[in-house]
Amino acid sequence: MKVKEQLLSLQAYDPGKSIDNVKKELGLTEIVNLASNENPFGCSEQISEALRSISHFAHYPDSRAEDLREKLAKQLNIEEQQLLFSSGLDEMIQIISRSLLTPESNVVMASFTFPQFRHHAVIEKSEIRAVPLKDGRHDLLSMQNEVDEKTSIVWICNPNNPTGTYVTETEIRGLLESVPDETLVVLDEAYFEYVTAEDYPDAMKLVNEYNNLLVLRTFSKGYGLAGFRIGYAIGDTTLISQFNISRLPFNTSQFAQVAARAALDDQAFIEESKNRNQEGLKQFYTFCNAYQIPYYPSQGNFIYIEPEQDLDEVFQYLIQRGYIVRPIKDGIRITVGKYEENEQVIALLKEILVDHRTIKLSS
Amino acid sequence: MKVKEQLLSLQAYDPGKSIDNVKKELGLTEIVNLASNENPFGCSEQISEALRSISHFAHYPDSRAEDLREKLAKQLNIEEQQLLFSSGLDEMIQIISRSLLTPESNVVMASFTFPQFRHHAVIEKSEIRAVPLKDGRHDLLSMQNEVDEKTSIVWICNPNNPTGTYVTETEIRGLLESVPDETLVVLDEAYFEYVTAEDYPDAMKLVNEYNNLLVLRTFSKGYGLAGFRIGYAIGDTTLISQFNISRLPFNTSQFAQVAARAALDDQAFIEESKNRNQEGLKQFYTFCNAYQIPYYPSQGNFIYIEPEQDLDEVFQYLIQRGYIVRPIKDGIRITVGKYEENEQVIALLKEILVDHRTIKLSS
Repeated sequence: MKVKEQLLSLQAYDPGKSIDNVKKELGLTEIVNLASNENPFGCSEQISEALRSISHFAHYPDSRAEDLREKLAKQLNIEEQQLLFSSGLDEMIQIISRSLLTPESNVVMASFTFPQFRHHAVIEKSEIRAVPLKDGRHDLLSMQNEVDEKTSIVWICNPNNPTGTYVTETEIRGLLESVPDETLVVLDEAYFEYVTAEDYPDAMKLVNEYNNLLVLRTFSKGYGLAGFRIGYAIGDTTLISQFNISRLPFNTSQFAQVAARAALDDQAFIEESKNRNQEGLKQFYTFCNAYQIPYYPSQGNFIYIEPEQDLDEVFQYLIQRGYIVRPIKDGIRITVGKYEENEQVIALLKEILVDHRTIKLSS
Repeated sequence: MKVKEQLLSLQAYDPGKSIDNVKKELGLTEIVNLASNENPFGCSEQISEALRSISHFAHYPDSRAEDLREKLAKQLNIEEQQLLFSSGLDEMIQIISRSLLTPESNVVMASFTFPQFRHHAVIEKSEIRAVPLKDGRHDLLSMQNEVDEKTSIVWICNPNNPTGTYVTETEIRGLLESVPDETLVVLDEAYFEYVTAEDYPDAMKLVNEYNNLLVLRTFSKGYGLAGFRIGYAIGDTTLISQFNISRLPFNTSQFAQVAARAALDDQAFIEESKNRNQEGLKQFYTFCNAYQIPYYPSQGNFIYIEPEQDLDEVFQYLIQRGYIVRPIKDGIRITVGKYEENEQVIALLKEILVDHRTIKLSS
């Protein structure tokens, strides 16, 4: 079987060892996973109750997700037809890429950012124009310079995964004004619910001004529903109806739809998650500032630090003590956990990044 | 935005009106959906109990579905690496098509069969060679004649949706012996759990003999878990690892994995569903034979009849009386329901197909 050549240049997603296996191997009774940017506070308590209403497991899910669609459109003050649901944003990135990209097109994105943008561009054989981050932020002016009439998509992860930095409404407007009408600008706002910056874009306003803007959000992060697989896009109704052709007919499960709908009703949970995340970020900032460990101020539920030590060594030190973090490129991305978890991982980071450094310097 | 031209030649999946909307419009208190081939007996009672074990909704699902994989591989007596899981077989057909098909390739399939085979071939711009059914069955000899060195996939839906007919092990072996090693033969066995024919292929034996054979099965039909979205493929380990690159990292939810695992433990439920389905099919056969209504003997949980009447008229007659069926091409596909449901839809079919015919003939 001749699998597409470009596919074989890619790696399958590597989930790493399961937490159960790590526990067994290291003889630990507890592991704290700070590698997946999950919500450490779980999800709304109303979810379990809502799921009990599902009685017909044997029935196909509602292909249109009508109940969820109605509620979400009202909450966002948009038309129902502006919404597209997907099995997490992974599927959305696939839908967008498969609908638009050809070997004749190019895509503009940051280097480095969420890897699935690149993954699907490679599968579609689209040219990838990756523009280095500037001070950990999307360099929109340089990205703008890479856009030409063959640019199908500009991917902007905002806040950016893994650096946590963001671009402002003014910057996004500048980009939207400069690109051709035929170029789709995608704002991936997976971490939207955690954002506190005042000059962060009001995407619901922008999406009604620019029909080449698509906004992505998910229930996996702030809402704490990663186990269910559901995300959504907001955009121009014509474009959404065209994307609808390449999504799978039953791409979100009954359970995901019911859970997401219940989650929307509990905005107090989101508010609390956001506040506790802010407190958690401060714990990390205080530590990094005290010991001159380079980091980026974050709008997400994670922080990216760039220690000078060997990253694999740091990773191993932490995992052997029950904390999993994610080394990415020249740094380490750490999910902001519960207060105590943050205290403990910071204490371990101090041991490996500061105390060991001191020992080395003094020896 | 320039959505791919070939995409615009396709229709988005049309789920039809929701059952709630049909109820409202027609003033009915109950609707029996015999249009989706769902299991009318639901699913194993052990599922609800198993789902209660899930406590961490905020955690991403196990990307490898290890627990389910281990149990299923043991039950099927295959290697764990021969298995690929997907969000229903819809995603599997997408994974296979996106991994293999190019504009230079062709695919061979029956006309008519499960429409998603064609849908994804169109998106990938692969040439479609559709071979008419012969007496409602896949015409494997003619299909074989359409295969050349550019044939990437031969799709065989067995039993075929919507006719319910099947091909035998001898026939499949004949095809497998004749096609090039580089051509993938896909046996879509979505309705496997309902099959009773003794000369139906033993696919687990064949898959270990031919590394260009891939077998698809699902938890949506016999297992009654359509609401969860989970299916799987069994094939050559190298091919499966390559397909793994183009599947989404978290394509099956926590809930789907736990439900599927519990379902495998309750083979008594499958046995009972199969037996009751056989009884249901006999109700339809008896009726069709008594009134000379053309039909195909079925190995699935549905029956395809080809009445001479206007199909839309028949559809309307039934839906207004609370029964939804699925007109497809020159016939109507009816899911085999519970005993009473079958009795009632048969009584309605007698009214519209037989009594009206008699009235017309005598008038």
